[in-house]
Amino acid sequence: MKNEPLILITNDDGIDAHGIRMLAGAMRGLGTLYVVAPREEQSGVSHAITIRQPVRIIKRDYVIEGETIEAYAVTGTPADCVKMAIDHILPRRPDLVVSGINQGPNAAVNILYSGTVSAALEASVLGLDAIAFSLNAWTGGRFEPAARYARRIAETTLLKKLPPGILLNVNVPDLPYDEIKGITITSQAKSRWEASFVEHRDPFDRPYYWIAGNFVNLDTGDHTDLAALEAGYVSVTPVHSDLTAHAFVEHMKAWKL
Amino acid sequence: MKNEPLILITNDDGIDAHGIRMLAGAMRGLGTLYVVAPREEQSGVSHAITIRQPVRIIKRDYVIEGETIEAYAVTGTPADCVKMAIDHILPRRPDLVVSGINQGPNAAVNILYSGTVSAALEASVLGLDAIAFSLNAWTGGRFEPAARYARRIAETTLLKKLPPGILLNVNVPDLPYDEIKGITITSQAKSRWEASFVEHRDPFDRPYYWIAGNFVNLDTGDHTDLAALEAGYVSVTPVHSDLTAHAFVEHMKAWKL
Repeated sequence: MKNEPLILITNDDGIDAHGIRMLAGAMRGLGTLYVVAPREEQSGVSHAITIRQPVRIIKRDYVIEGETIEAYAVTGTPADCVKMAIDHILPRRPDLVVSGINQGPNAAVNILYSGTVSAALEASVLGLDAIAFSLNAWTGGRFEPAARYARRIAETTLLKKLPPGILLNVNVPDLPYDEIKGITITSQAKSRWEASFVEHRDPFDRPYYWIAGNFVNLDTGDHTDLAALEAGYVSVTPVHSDLTAHAFVEHMKAWKL
Repeated sequence: MKNEPLILITNDDGIDAHGIRMLAGAMRGLGTLYVVAPREEQSGVSHAITIRQPVRIIKRDYVIEGETIEAYAVTGTPADCVKMAIDHILPRRPDLVVSGINQGPNAAVNILYSGTVSAALEASVLGLDAIAFSLNAWTGGRFEPAARYARRIAETTLLKKLPPGILLNVNVPDLPYDEIKGITITSQAKSRWEASFVEHRDPFDRPYYWIAGNFVNLDTGDHTDLAALEAGYVSVTPVHSDLTAHAFVEHMKAWKL
């Protein structure tokens, strides 16, 4: 169809991840689909862009239930993929960019580290409607209910449209569809990862360090993304790219720097 | 001195960059200094953390005007450096984390891509006072006036202390000290980079792409970081890690998802 929506699908777990294939499957019928995703896993790369080396594009079409979906692997980050898709691959600007379904939650402080959310954030900076989807399971888990919610939220977003500069960050609990209590609108919980590097020794007895850590929820609010997941709800957080701490601007003027 | 402040110095241009040595020099006398910075340049890595491979630490002390400053290179990102410093290298939690002086402005949307700002943001997430400093010159430029302002702002911050979760993002115009008009408190300008990938061909005639782009200021406000730099002021933007678009939360409930 000539005027049907154009939807870009990306992620940070890479083009071969189960979650992005589930997301592509869930978008079927909503419009013309393009997949542009990192060739390799890019978890934790945040909003990184590849500026000190070039990137390449490899065509890697999906076939889902007999239907071919045009798909491209990019040897870069999720933010690179969005930029490359818009500038070079898609026939026109997309009506919607969906990112995910991420293996693991991107709630609370994880938004900062997430390539999945950063892809949607990059799309939003470029003036596009965008949604990031993540499943609250670090390994395995139930992608099928998450895909059903992704479809519902994407369909509504295509109809309603988002205000400029705002994207949606969606986290889905790892529960059977019937046990998910619905969708709730949330804010990002205050939290941190307390790192504790684990020391190993190489064969030459030189130390190297693997990052590990404990997640600490610093937020007792009822309406956070973490609280929603805990209570069995799909969490939808509207997110923007303005990092200004506006409430402190006036206060700081009194510093008389 | 036993109770003097502990100051961690980091950046994204790497431990050998001119800007971080200038920053370390500017902090002399304010307390006990530690440098923990990426071994290699990490521009554009944003808030990436290294999770799929280990990192190593290499001791690389600075000597500035005869004074030795304990310094460590980490084979990771700026966010890794902050985590590693806190967990493994520093004798106690620092009183202040300073990042920079970055080669190039980190105003407007560049905050999202910047490793320099992300290092300060990571410190802030970990509950520490933090400041990112950047010079408005993509190459060369006047680091000396920027270092003088860095000292003044760091000194005031050590005295006043920042509220939890808020860091300062400082951009200094590339002007002689006498021509800088002072310091002004700003907000992050709306803007975007419009990417245009440049295609090259390898010796096997296969295409590869270098990211390039045009910076577009979408903000006509007088009190933005970009406007301050343009007018010859040092821009200080208070920044936080809460990406929630709070104003849209209530509105979105009406979507009845």
